Amino acid sequence: MVPRNKLKILNDPIYGFITIPSELIFDIIEHRYFQRLRRISQMGLSYLVYPGAHHTRLLHALGCLHLMQSAVRVLRAKGVEISPKEEEALYIAILLHDVGHGPFSHAMEHSIVEGVSHERLSILFMNQINEEFNGKLDLAIAIFKGEYPRIFLCQLISSQLDMDRLDYLKRDSFYTGVVEGNINSERLISMLNVMNDELMVEEKGIYSVEEFLLARRLMYWQVYLHKTGVAAEQLLIRVLKRAKELFGAGHQLYLGNALEYFLETKVTEADFTPEILETFASLDDSDVLAAMKQWSHHEDFVLSTLSRMILNRDLLKVVISKEPPSEEALASHRHQLAAKYDLTPHEAGYFVFSGDITNTAYRMEEEGIKILYKNGNVRDVVEASDHFNLKALASPVTKFYICYPKPKD
Amino acid sequence: MVPRNKLKILNDPIYGFITIPSELIFDIIEHRYFQRLRRISQMGLSYLVYPGAHHTRLLHALGCLHLMQSAVRVLRAKGVEISPKEEEALYIAILLHDVGHGPFSHAMEHSIVEGVSHERLSILFMNQINEEFNGKLDLAIAIFKGEYPRIFLCQLISSQLDMDRLDYLKRDSFYTGVVEGNINSERLISMLNVMNDELMVEEKGIYSVEEFLLARRLMYWQVYLHKTGVAAEQLLIRVLKRAKELFGAGHQLYLGNALEYFLETKVTEADFTPEILETFASLDDSDVLAAMKQWSHHEDFVLSTLSRMILNRDLLKVVISKEPPSEEALASHRHQLAAKYDLTPHEAGYFVFSGDITNTAYRMEEEGIKILYKNGNVRDVVEASDHFNLKALASPVTKFYICYPKPKD
Amino acid sequence: MVPRNKLKILNDPIYGFITIPSELIFDIIEHRYFQRLRRISQMGLSYLVYPGAHHTRLLHALGCLHLMQSAVRVLRAKGVEISPKEEEALYIAILLHDVGHGPFSHAMEHSIVEGVSHERLSILFMNQINEEFNGKLDLAIAIFKGEYPRIFLCQLISSQLDMDRLDYLKRDSFYTGVVEGNINSERLISMLNVMNDELMVEEKGIYSVEEFLLARRLMYWQVYLHKTGVAAEQLLIRVLKRAKELFGAGHQLYLGNALEYFLETKVTEADFTPEILETFASLDDSDVLAAMKQWSHHEDFVLSTLSRMILNRDLLKVVISKEPPSEEALASHRHQLAAKYDLTPHEAGYFVFSGDITNTAYRMEEEGIKILYKNGNVRDVVEASDHFNLKALASPVTKFYICYPKPKD
Amino acid sequence: MVPRNKLKILNDPIYGFITIPSELIFDIIEHRYFQRLRRISQMGLSYLVYPGAHHTRLLHALGCLHLMQSAVRVLRAKGVEISPKEEEALYIAILLHDVGHGPFSHAMEHSIVEGVSHERLSILFMNQINEEFNGKLDLAIAIFKGEYPRIFLCQLISSQLDMDRLDYLKRDSFYTGVVEGNINSERLISMLNVMNDELMVEEKGIYSVEEFLLARRLMYWQVYLHKTGVAAEQLLIRVLKRAKELFGAGHQLYLGNALEYFLETKVTEADFTPEILETFASLDDSDVLAAMKQWSHHEDFVLSTLSRMILNRDLLKVVISKEPPSEEALASHRHQLAAKYDLTPHEAGYFVFSGDITNTAYRMEEEGIKILYKNGNVRDVVEASDHFNLKALASPVTKFYICYPKPKD
Repeated sequence: MVPRNKLKILNDPIYGFITIPSELIFDIIEHRYFQRLRRISQMGLSYLVYPGAHHTRLLHALGCLHLMQSAVRVLRAKGVEISPKEEEALYIAILLHDVGHGPFSHAMEHSIVEGVSHERLSILFMNQINEEFNGKLDLAIAIFKGEYPRIFLCQLISSQLDMDRLDYLKRDSFYTGVVEGNINSERLISMLNVMNDELMVEEKGIYSVEEFLLARRLMYWQVYLHKTGVAAEQLLIRVLKRAKELFGAGHQLYLGNALEYFLETKVTEADFTPEILETFASLDDSDVLAAMKQWSHHEDFVLSTLSRMILNRDLLKVVISKEPPSEEALASHRHQLAAKYDLTPHEAGYFVFSGDITNTAYRMEEEGIKILYKNGNVRDVVEASDHFNLKALASPVTKFYICYPKPKD
Repeated sequence: MVPRNKLKILNDPIYGFITIPSELIFDIIEHRYFQRLRRISQMGLSYLVYPGAHHTRLLHALGCLHLMQSAVRVLRAKGVEISPKEEEALYIAILLHDVGHGPFSHAMEHSIVEGVSHERLSILFMNQINEEFNGKLDLAIAIFKGEYPRIFLCQLISSQLDMDRLDYLKRDSFYTGVVEGNINSERLISMLNVMNDELMVEEKGIYSVEEFLLARRLMYWQVYLHKTGVAAEQLLIRVLKRAKELFGAGHQLYLGNALEYFLETKVTEADFTPEILETFASLDDSDVLAAMKQWSHHEDFVLSTLSRMILNRDLLKVVISKEPPSEEALASHRHQLAAKYDLTPHEAGYFVFSGDITNTAYRMEEEGIKILYKNGNVRDVVEASDHFNLKALASPVTKFYICYPKPKD
Repeated sequence: MVPRNKLKILNDPIYGFITIPSELIFDIIEHRYFQRLRRISQMGLSYLVYPGAHHTRLLHALGCLHLMQSAVRVLRAKGVEISPKEEEALYIAILLHDVGHGPFSHAMEHSIVEGVSHERLSILFMNQINEEFNGKLDLAIAIFKGEYPRIFLCQLISSQLDMDRLDYLKRDSFYTGVVEGNINSERLISMLNVMNDELMVEEKGIYSVEEFLLARRLMYWQVYLHKTGVAAEQLLIRVLKRAKELFGAGHQLYLGNALEYFLETKVTEADFTPEILETFASLDDSDVLAAMKQWSHHEDFVLSTLSRMILNRDLLKVVISKEPPSEEALASHRHQLAAKYDLTPHEAGYFVFSGDITNTAYRMEEEGIKILYKNGNVRDVVEASDHFNLKALASPVTKFYICYPKPKD
Repeated sequence: MVPRNKLKILNDPIYGFITIPSELIFDIIEHRYFQRLRRISQMGLSYLVYPGAHHTRLLHALGCLHLMQSAVRVLRAKGVEISPKEEEALYIAILLHDVGHGPFSHAMEHSIVEGVSHERLSILFMNQINEEFNGKLDLAIAIFKGEYPRIFLCQLISSQLDMDRLDYLKRDSFYTGVVEGNINSERLISMLNVMNDELMVEEKGIYSVEEFLLARRLMYWQVYLHKTGVAAEQLLIRVLKRAKELFGAGHQLYLGNALEYFLETKVTEADFTPEILETFASLDDSDVLAAMKQWSHHEDFVLSTLSRMILNRDLLKVVISKEPPSEEALASHRHQLAAKYDLTPHEAGYFVFSGDITNTAYRMEEEGIKILYKNGNVRDVVEASDHFNLKALASPVTKFYICYPKPKD
């Protein structure tokens, strides 16, 4: 039995409270690699749009743990066997599924550690923790990597209806106040079942799955791909790119040690020794914020201006359209800006750029969401849904944006 | 009329959304001094206890603005005259009432700017913004400082039943998940009235006021004075004190410019030139976090250990008692620690210390909460309440704590 | 000014509290025709499926009043002129828009007062109250009937985005616990505007309107047209039909006076004298429930069995399909039942029947929801939405059901 | 294992959803004695004050079932052994703990079945159901009656911190919108433990217990003993008393069969044969409402006036005071009324009366709430609480009211 002093309960504004189910999991939560997630914003810079959204990767991971406990309870009640070892491995894997995220979550993958995904970094972290815990994470890692034969265990962690999505959609809806994106995670979980070691949703859950997909679509367009949020993230990527550029050219630049290391060194996945991982682990949102405040006084116009724009939420103008903006439009904005502030075209490009945002609410080509009928039949949810064209959700929607400085009044 | 493009609405998880009522207020919100509040945690390090509580001073200030709009609406509906100029001044004053807070809110008043309260700093900031806005904040500042004759306007901003408390209790309860501390702010506001320019609560609101006081008491003991939170804050004060000590003694120390300035210089209120205010404004939670990560590798045992304790949430043991701990107990813990790590008594004192926490749920000696009876009589709420000994809430409760390192297993 | 003792505030679990804005409105709320709505369930027998859903027509009407106050505030803030008289008329009209509902809301229109819609009855009630209030409801009635030139006032009461829908979707979602149907009513209202006296939604509100339509679709299929709820309602219609039949054939039957009158008399709209209206007003859910309990002991097998089925929630089996059930299937079930209990085919038909349920989430042919662009253009929301096939929501979806007795174990 | 088709999930606005844990429990829920609770308002006539509060005894019972499942889970996780048979018995006992309530809950105990408490009636119902289920409720009944040796099982059902209170306080707070009465039921449950077969709260739960007691006190004064609600309940008791009086005197009176039986017959507990129990079971709120609507046209002034007052919410004036009203005051009001409407003093007494309301938030003399310290010590919560005078909550508070007709404007 869990010793009393480690049987912990944590408050959560959404689920009321979250129970830590075992001593091993308690110890993993106490690990510095997990605790650092307190300093990484779950939604990056989205708080510039939704000022309530300062929740962290740590709380999201704990929320996933909570939902996974519900899922285990529901499945067992339906006769699905999950051994105590599998159960604990599930909890560990979901807790650590995002442990590889860097500062401001996704922005870093495009700057600091270009080309190494956070999923790969999560595995590196898990391996490292596993070593410290003498192999107790073996099964968790196997499940996470999809190498364990009972595939539904992996699907609970990573699929189109995993505990990750069930928590983050609900949580992000809660903290942003976008109530239309609220989903009934517990109800969806109550409709899960397993057949042939595959995760299914029972027939009566079709509506709930539909709503889940629609809520997800909503959250993408209204929140994750909100044009102001996209602009802020693009600025963040560019401020780090500029810092790297200046640093590479020998400029004096305020940087913490860890940031300095990653701006200086091109690191591939293979390079990640335990020491480098430790250095990466010491990076979080605060380094970038602290650095930008110093940079806001830097003599380089691009670096200081970009920094101030983010810090003071004085962002670029963003225009969304169905077609990519013309090269002429971009050139004209760049030209104007370059003339006004005496910038090179390269420098002006930091403030005038375009891109696209795209979302597919449901991916049919991937492993889909399966509906299990009372008679034992199984169909993809898109085919099971009889009164709504879910297929529309399966085609990607792409929009284009152009960013340029706001004309000042 | 407000130009369409500045009539802004912000999402808030608590009130649904918050309306920005005028262009001037919109511009004040966009000011960098206000935007910096995005980087200051409303509850300091309480998120180490309540992982959902990462909301910021910025959102709290906007929440207060929202409640103030309700209050103006309610009072006007009851025939209380509030001119448009007074109305706008109220909104400005409540928005900026906490703009003077530094990193981690209260902790800084005991380290960075010892002896200058955040209220005083708020006034300095307001004056500075007022200058930039050509005196448009004159009335707001007069109300905030209590210099405007219609005293209820000031009471709406600062009293035992002000919009500040009505927002922060509700908000902190919401984000921590301590639902018992939830208060019905809108209902309390609906019961406000004004007589002889003084703020009153109508007779039927007695229960609501009682509950408000009880909820406040609960939040103090369960949240604001939670022993783990207190320990974390004390460690934070000590890590900065040690940094100052080392820096003063000539040690090399990673610090941003602003932190360096304030650790180096003893600043009194009179010293705050616009430049120094600007430097102070550039300080926020991220500087302290970023610095502690660097310090966690410092050669000084005290500085590096304290830093790691906070970052990794590996805090001291805290024992609460009704009596102050004995000098012997403190000495014994210090002695043990000094022996174990070869520390001087002064150094050991950074890890072994005691203190007290105290709260008075309701202060009778101060300007109290007045109940207005239908017959025009006015009584203090403590006397008005007829079936519960509210006086018990008016006596301060003090507890003592001792902190020392956890015995490792 | 409103006399203090009539400035009332009511608690509402959804909006916190609802303010009664004037003395006249207070007096209308106190009228017995409005108070009777306390005894009429907003969702009919849906509480047999969703046990939390016992909210009443009275609370819904008050909720609409609350939202209308928001709408007036928002529109005025955008420069739309609404005179105090128009304002009060809006409140009265929305308060009374459903006052004509009979017991269990919609079920009665198919039995008690066949052929007289509740909207027509609402007008009859409004006229009657207007007489008692010396014509003070003239403008409210004109707006309600669409006879007032400023058409947006009527649209706020009755259109595809009226305060009625904004309240009932939110409220029914809340009380059923179907959180996916929650809509952000206040946010939708904040995006309303008026051009050429027509109600519009501002451009930035497109997503919110989409979500509103999707939530509405969800609530229809998951709640309002839930198969068990449909079966219960059909049984209720049939129990009353049977009572009428028996009563017409001279059987002794327990009935209150009002129920007796309406089962005995075929009443058209033209027949509604003030006396008959008063008799209708005395009917509510309790009469039907009380009667069914008496009927459950009646010697007629059909009447007593149907009554018990509803009272004890021992309902028929319902099978949903995309095609209408075959005549053979119906005949076979009827035949089986008739044989088992020695019933005539007509009697068996009370327990075996089919029907269809249909819903159109958005009606394009009707006056649609108009989107107002910043450049002044106006488009229907279906055309304005650029990344989701809203047209799919505009085609009616029909399903068929067959009901027959459950095979007993 | 539970057959799939009986593993039911119900929506609940508060807990999300409620799971029916076994087939036996499913069958008990389907029993007509349980289903009738759908027609009995949990809070009597309180909906005349709080219009959202139409929730039923059925939903409250299901909510208790849900909390009991949490309690079993928590206690087992702490090593408390609860056998599957005990578990099911707990669920049955809590489901049926209030099944003996009559129309409008408490009002009936003072009129219809004077002198037979609802608890006694609950046992009679349980015995009857037990017979139909061949003794499967034996253990549940033993636990409910306190005859089972493991006393904590009974305490979970009935004590000062039982699942009943944990549900009804939360639920009534939710449905009335009195958010200050919200309690964190799940958190309180998480702190339960058992020592020597007695229910305890762990030390860290002291604050939560305090808050629970304060919330309970609040709900009593603000909701359950709200003066308007008290007046309505007193009127209801009197309308039935008058009906009984008239009926006894041979007047013609509309009554359903069941109501007639109980107004005619004085029934003691010993009289309750299965037939009489069945008659009682057929009584619910609808009978009283339907009867009052008929009575509102009765020739007896007292009966018709009282009925209309309740139906139209046109209640008496209520004045609360610390001292009982004087006999002179009562006599004067009665005299005035008698003169105005030509009533006998006895008749006038139906409209002019006084009484008292009293509440004790915590009863020390009874079996108290025990706090279990880490060191194994046990203390009553009143002694355990160190910074708040909980003893104040243990003294009864009594207030007096006088009711008389409102002076009409």
